[in-house]
Amino acid sequence: MVVSAKSQNKTPKPFIRIIHGPNLNLLGQREPETYGYQTLDEVNHLLTMRGETLGLTVAFFQSNHEGELIDAIQQSIQDTEGLIINPAGLTHTSVALGDAMAVYPHPSVEVHLSNIYAREVFRHHSYVSSHVTGVLCGLGAQGYSMALNFLAEKI
Amino acid sequence: MVVSAKSQNKTPKPFIRIIHGPNLNLLGQREPETYGYQTLDEVNHLLTMRGETLGLTVAFFQSNHEGELIDAIQQSIQDTEGLIINPAGLTHTSVALGDAMAVYPHPSVEVHLSNIYAREVFRHHSYVSSHVTGVLCGLGAQGYSMALNFLAEKI
Amino acid sequence: MVVSAKSQNKTPKPFIRIIHGPNLNLLGQREPETYGYQTLDEVNHLLTMRGETLGLTVAFFQSNHEGELIDAIQQSIQDTEGLIINPAGLTHTSVALGDAMAVYPHPSVEVHLSNIYAREVFRHHSYVSSHVTGVLCGLGAQGYSMALNFLAEKI
Amino acid sequence: MVVSAKSQNKTPKPFIRIIHGPNLNLLGQREPETYGYQTLDEVNHLLTMRGETLGLTVAFFQSNHEGELIDAIQQSIQDTEGLIINPAGLTHTSVALGDAMAVYPHPSVEVHLSNIYAREVFRHHSYVSSHVTGVLCGLGAQGYSMALNFLAEKI
Amino acid sequence: MVVSAKSQNKTPKPFIRIIHGPNLNLLGQREPETYGYQTLDEVNHLLTMRGETLGLTVAFFQSNHEGELIDAIQQSIQDTEGLIINPAGLTHTSVALGDAMAVYPHPSVEVHLSNIYAREVFRHHSYVSSHVTGVLCGLGAQGYSMALNFLAEKI
Amino acid sequence: MVVSAKSQNKTPKPFIRIIHGPNLNLLGQREPETYGYQTLDEVNHLLTMRGETLGLTVAFFQSNHEGELIDAIQQSIQDTEGLIINPAGLTHTSVALGDAMAVYPHPSVEVHLSNIYAREVFRHHSYVSSHVTGVLCGLGAQGYSMALNFLAEKI
Amino acid sequence: MVVSAKSQNKTPKPFIRIIHGPNLNLLGQREPETYGYQTLDEVNHLLTMRGETLGLTVAFFQSNHEGELIDAIQQSIQDTEGLIINPAGLTHTSVALGDAMAVYPHPSVEVHLSNIYAREVFRHHSYVSSHVTGVLCGLGAQGYSMALNFLAEKI
Amino acid sequence: MVVSAKSQNKTPKPFIRIIHGPNLNLLGQREPETYGYQTLDEVNHLLTMRGETLGLTVAFFQSNHEGELIDAIQQSIQDTEGLIINPAGLTHTSVALGDAMAVYPHPSVEVHLSNIYAREVFRHHSYVSSHVTGVLCGLGAQGYSMALNFLAEKI
Amino acid sequence: MVVSAKSQNKTPKPFIRIIHGPNLNLLGQREPETYGYQTLDEVNHLLTMRGETLGLTVAFFQSNHEGELIDAIQQSIQDTEGLIINPAGLTHTSVALGDAMAVYPHPSVEVHLSNIYAREVFRHHSYVSSHVTGVLCGLGAQGYSMALNFLAEKI
Amino acid sequence: MVVSAKSQNKTPKPFIRIIHGPNLNLLGQREPETYGYQTLDEVNHLLTMRGETLGLTVAFFQSNHEGELIDAIQQSIQDTEGLIINPAGLTHTSVALGDAMAVYPHPSVEVHLSNIYAREVFRHHSYVSSHVTGVLCGLGAQGYSMALNFLAEKI
Amino acid sequence: MVVSAKSQNKTPKPFIRIIHGPNLNLLGQREPETYGYQTLDEVNHLLTMRGETLGLTVAFFQSNHEGELIDAIQQSIQDTEGLIINPAGLTHTSVALGDAMAVYPHPSVEVHLSNIYAREVFRHHSYVSSHVTGVLCGLGAQGYSMALNFLAEKI
Amino acid sequence: MVVSAKSQNKTPKPFIRIIHGPNLNLLGQREPETYGYQTLDEVNHLLTMRGETLGLTVAFFQSNHEGELIDAIQQSIQDTEGLIINPAGLTHTSVALGDAMAVYPHPSVEVHLSNIYAREVFRHHSYVSSHVTGVLCGLGAQGYSMALNFLAEKI
Repeated sequence: MVVSAKSQNKTPKPFIRIIHGPNLNLLGQREPETYGYQTLDEVNHLLTMRGETLGLTVAFFQSNHEGELIDAIQQSIQDTEGLIINPAGLTHTSVALGDAMAVYPHPSVEVHLSNIYAREVFRHHSYVSSHVTGVLCGLGAQGYSMALNFLAEKI
Repeated sequence: MVVSAKSQNKTPKPFIRIIHGPNLNLLGQREPETYGYQTLDEVNHLLTMRGETLGLTVAFFQSNHEGELIDAIQQSIQDTEGLIINPAGLTHTSVALGDAMAVYPHPSVEVHLSNIYAREVFRHHSYVSSHVTGVLCGLGAQGYSMALNFLAEKI
Repeated sequence: MVVSAKSQNKTPKPFIRIIHGPNLNLLGQREPETYGYQTLDEVNHLLTMRGETLGLTVAFFQSNHEGELIDAIQQSIQDTEGLIINPAGLTHTSVALGDAMAVYPHPSVEVHLSNIYAREVFRHHSYVSSHVTGVLCGLGAQGYSMALNFLAEKI
Repeated sequence: MVVSAKSQNKTPKPFIRIIHGPNLNLLGQREPETYGYQTLDEVNHLLTMRGETLGLTVAFFQSNHEGELIDAIQQSIQDTEGLIINPAGLTHTSVALGDAMAVYPHPSVEVHLSNIYAREVFRHHSYVSSHVTGVLCGLGAQGYSMALNFLAEKI
Repeated sequence: MVVSAKSQNKTPKPFIRIIHGPNLNLLGQREPETYGYQTLDEVNHLLTMRGETLGLTVAFFQSNHEGELIDAIQQSIQDTEGLIINPAGLTHTSVALGDAMAVYPHPSVEVHLSNIYAREVFRHHSYVSSHVTGVLCGLGAQGYSMALNFLAEKI
Repeated sequence: MVVSAKSQNKTPKPFIRIIHGPNLNLLGQREPETYGYQTLDEVNHLLTMRGETLGLTVAFFQSNHEGELIDAIQQSIQDTEGLIINPAGLTHTSVALGDAMAVYPHPSVEVHLSNIYAREVFRHHSYVSSHVTGVLCGLGAQGYSMALNFLAEKI
Repeated sequence: MVVSAKSQNKTPKPFIRIIHGPNLNLLGQREPETYGYQTLDEVNHLLTMRGETLGLTVAFFQSNHEGELIDAIQQSIQDTEGLIINPAGLTHTSVALGDAMAVYPHPSVEVHLSNIYAREVFRHHSYVSSHVTGVLCGLGAQGYSMALNFLAEKI
Repeated sequence: MVVSAKSQNKTPKPFIRIIHGPNLNLLGQREPETYGYQTLDEVNHLLTMRGETLGLTVAFFQSNHEGELIDAIQQSIQDTEGLIINPAGLTHTSVALGDAMAVYPHPSVEVHLSNIYAREVFRHHSYVSSHVTGVLCGLGAQGYSMALNFLAEKI
Repeated sequence: MVVSAKSQNKTPKPFIRIIHGPNLNLLGQREPETYGYQTLDEVNHLLTMRGETLGLTVAFFQSNHEGELIDAIQQSIQDTEGLIINPAGLTHTSVALGDAMAVYPHPSVEVHLSNIYAREVFRHHSYVSSHVTGVLCGLGAQGYSMALNFLAEKI
Repeated sequence: MVVSAKSQNKTPKPFIRIIHGPNLNLLGQREPETYGYQTLDEVNHLLTMRGETLGLTVAFFQSNHEGELIDAIQQSIQDTEGLIINPAGLTHTSVALGDAMAVYPHPSVEVHLSNIYAREVFRHHSYVSSHVTGVLCGLGAQGYSMALNFLAEKI
Repeated sequence: MVVSAKSQNKTPKPFIRIIHGPNLNLLGQREPETYGYQTLDEVNHLLTMRGETLGLTVAFFQSNHEGELIDAIQQSIQDTEGLIINPAGLTHTSVALGDAMAVYPHPSVEVHLSNIYAREVFRHHSYVSSHVTGVLCGLGAQGYSMALNFLAEKI
Repeated sequence: MVVSAKSQNKTPKPFIRIIHGPNLNLLGQREPETYGYQTLDEVNHLLTMRGETLGLTVAFFQSNHEGELIDAIQQSIQDTEGLIINPAGLTHTSVALGDAMAVYPHPSVEVHLSNIYAREVFRHHSYVSSHVTGVLCGLGAQGYSMALNFLAEKI
């Protein structure tokens, strides 16, 4: 279930959603030498605190379902002022995800934990990249934090 | 939820389902100069009336989820005599959707609102086209109406 | 010889030309299970009547010559308000035909009798599609009739 | 809903899950000359009995939803000692499914009912194959049974 | 102008047409070390005599116009029992020519004077080859004569 | 009809033919911001005068028919000492046109009004370029004039 | 030398031949972590015993020579009721081997010891796969045993 | 064993060798609707007689071994004045066979029984074609006979 | 001239070099709507100040010469603890630049001002990306600042 | 060293720079049958005189260094009103050179001495062509002179 | 027959085998301007003498049969300390030959007489190169001699 | 600076230049397990001595700048009788370097320290190879020494 801004975002602080794609719920467990040893909850907790420092309310959504991720992007059109998305494996195969991002009207950043350009060739193309403001990859969980900084300055 | 013919189709009129793929729920909002200014509800309403004129009962289904669209096709095998599908972004990436259509035994039409051949190269290939009776594109929402006409004559 | 609107179109009804490409003069004779059992004359006769119903004057032109088809498109720039074209085998090989269509200023529809996406790969690309309003394929001779409907509404 | 090992697997017998991808719920109905005349329930019943003979508890999961299949693989990391997967149409398009399998730590087998190498070219590539122990195809429903034998010996 | 069988073929001898494509009218003049020193008239004269020996009436048609060549193939459907075609440069670019040959119901042979497989890569593919009975290349003008022999035995 | 040098070229001045391919008869009318605002007659008039200055007799030929263009090239082998050709859309698709140029024994220049390398990818390849002395593109109608200069110096 | 069924197969038990391709005689010696530590003789011995259990007579043939492997397939048309083949490196390069298998009239299985889909790209295509009943790979020497089971049930 | 001209060719008649590639020993048995119902011995017998009529001594060689076919070509350099070769499946994969033909100094013809251009794409390329005088395909066993005629005239 | 750390870096603060590739000296002048209105000097000034805040000494180097950029990378191996590089147009064509980065032993970040994935296809591949720690693009001059933050945390 | 307009261009005549790429300093020495027998100095001398006739001051720059050529283009943005460039071997490999030309605000012409379309395939693509006004090739050193004429008329 | 080290190599000198692939037995006869005028026996004689100088026993093997070459490599695993191989035409087509070399445990060199990179494109790829220590090409028969020197130093 | 033969080569001994491309100045430091532990100076020292033994004067040049390498090749046309070049990363991307080598009139050898065919695919193509006498790779620094031997014999 995508947590909507309406129920959560009582304060007038700008609302940002961070969307995690398939298999990112396994963070800390999946090839930790590549993806890091922190769990997704730990990462999200640090990002919530980072958001507070920056004066942002940050919500999170993770799903292994392409459709739910599209739903979450569509809801974000309504209730957010900035979006961070790590589409994971769907990055390279989902035109529909890219189509959804094409409608998103605010600044957005695509984040990849690993350096996808140092991996298999099929990971070098993204259907999402041409519909976001910018792309970060290979910086680990710190990439999310940097993307938050970027959005905080833009908004 | 896919509305089944059993609960809805009381009359002996032929039952047709129109399946809308990802992001089509944003119709009227998403790049209106490309996709038109009517909302999906307005389009569906006009198609319901057009169906009545043609003696057809028309049901609708929209989802951003590939799996729900496959479910809807499979149900249509049971309860419809004709199918119209706009697979949107999944057109170009979903073998599974094409496999589902390959089982559908009645006349079917693939519809695209925009002229996909005048857009990006990756939109020129469809995994669905070889499993439908015919394809219409670039005719806007009128394409659905024309597909209904076609099915009315075929059935 | 392309029959011009000047000599034929006495009435103020909108003038539409339907252009049939190479080998379509063999209709009814060539692989009828694919292309149907009606001859081109029979198809044209039905389309003339359909045009009358819609308040359109419809002219026809068939040629096996790329150059004559280009001539016909160029004349249509002068004397028509809508164009339907089935470029047949030239669809996939004629840049010049596409260039001619690029100049055509009114609504236009590309029609294919068979579902070209269910045939050889080289039939999946069209040099014409990106220069027409819309494309219909796989609907048999009914496709022409549906294209007439579309033009009638547009004009 | 993926039936978990916790509620089902009371005995200390090794737990195996067989995951069926999109459209496999139509087994017996979809092109039976290609896929066989048995329904999925009949196939699963035979595999349950085969599992008992081999001293294995076998659970089944079928879905048309990529996300649910990923969920099922992730749960299998927790509660199984072997996995059999027929990703069907998603075989050729889902990087995310392959990413989920890459985390699976026990022996696994990819099974295809038909000989995918004797079919369309786009069915010759699998995003899953490089993340399983072995691949079987073209052996019909017997392929599942053989995969069970293989896992029984490995465990 | 394609000379029709009706006016010419008074005798009950089988009627064969040999169709020469673009630039073959320059025979004897164009790169003679590749195409030979005989003119097209000389070649045709020898083939007429060869036809008489074999009990065949042979007609000839040469054009630089794709459309006229298609017309000639279509007429041959009516008035011949065998066809020999050298599509020259159109071999590699004309789907429409191949479509016309696909309708031809009698034995047919595609002839090339030079060994097209020892020339540029774009000459290695033919849109016509898959619609004829057989192909001969690299045998010079003698290739036509051999094709006549073949047709004489087939008819 | 190709105007032959015999009837026209009374003087001993060198005879040059400029051949315009498909759709160039629409010059001034077709996308004038790309192709310029002069009509083909105006361009030809200026080139005739330019020819007179350079001591050349200049003839013109335009056709939308590939076959007629090949005929014109073949006639030019007989009656000209230099050739300028703008094959337009046929540039990229006609092996037969290139074959005809391969026989032409005098200096020749391929001219394109627009910079074809700044347009669609399929316009980047020419079947003609490898059979002419040189190529000019993107210089508008002035390109013809420059080609005349070049031929005047060469002859 | 291919051992023929005539001299060996005294009993009325079904006769099966297992054909091993190039370099498989090095089994146990060549990259044992990939191909296993058993020698080919040891593997064959176990398969003979497995065959006895299944009521099958099993013969073996190994060669590094494409031609001898084709000879063995051709002989198997005469004297066997089932065939197992591991074409090794020839899998990816030998059309002739595939052509021979295309004539084989009984059930057949292609076996690969390693998971070829997890190796170099050129190992992902097989000229043989489209001419066998099924394919197994990545299951080590057990794959042969499983193929025997499959043939035992089929015959 | 390649039968050499020395032991066989007592007479001063020109010596021709016909080389048949892999699986052609199955002629009459392998897909007869494609390759014909005559056995290779029957075909060879007719060609011997045809050779006598033409004043040629004809020897034959068939092998499933690439190496033996290369040996036979190399011997033919010594003892023949013309060569006919049907490389069958090796046509498309053997650079070494093409290299051997490149050394052959006399007229030679490549023959294919079926129309390889109407079959799988990988059969459209030949490593041999660019090293022979000419190519014939799709004419059945009569192709060999026509090739003999051609060589008789050339020698 | 690359300014070396020895002469400049008196303090024990970590030394970072930011390398700007070809045409970046035109910043503020070149397509400012894409690259921003700040000049390179202004950007560098802000980054120096940002470095001071982070406790880093930052040096800059810009060149239009591939060789000088490689020299600068090699010097950075000696005198820096972190590297930021925007290879500009060389990103997509220089293997040598990538080879130099492969030797660099400290954390490094590739930065692009514009979102290269939303531009021409040839800008989607980088020879450098697989040899850096991470990649940032589309964030304008702020990307450099974010990369500094990242390096400050890493060192 | 690029000679700047400031020191040289005393007169108010328009200033044009002609930039010669790698290996053009070998003119007259490198494959003269392809590139001509004049040295670069001789060519430049003739162009200086041609410039005087046209009322233009012409400067020249040659370098084998990509970086120096980019520097020269950047300087030309400041001090010229027209640019002629022959990027030679860098034409096909230098994105950075094309990026520099993209900033150049005045008319520009790309010149190649040889007909690059009649040479190796990798010479058929240019990273520069889409950023210049027009392209000339195959006209030898006269191409530069014609480009000067063109610029003289444009300015 | 591969001459084994056991029967020949009486002395304790290191044993090296040089393997010549298809058509190399024609050396001196096949395109001598490309491959040189020495026969294979003459080349081998010189290499034997060179080996003696270097303190190596050198054996030779030539075959036109892929299988025999694989046999020879396998035997060399047993009886040699270094291997030189010129796979000739099989270089580009034989995965099985590369697989055999992958097992060879000692230093090895791939030699080509001609510069294969200056020839047809299909000669630019080798299935063997990635499994040898080094590659030499274009140095004629001297390449073998240089490879011997290399092995002498390595062993 | 390229050291010219004039100042250095006092003796009448043949003069050879060895040109090292980008990053080779890092030899001994860059991935020593791939490129060896000797520095470039050490390698050059050994080659100088080897040259003396062979009666050759050997000069060296290393640069990271494509332009300087082209300059060095051009100077070598004047002052050397043989050339050895290791273009390193520029091997695969520099048409200009290949163009320079195409002018070099004496024997030349391309050397690579590592076996580039066992590395990334983009390292398998060389723009230089088709313009040198021969190529050596994978033999480490000894490859230079072998190339010197080859040149000594050729000169």
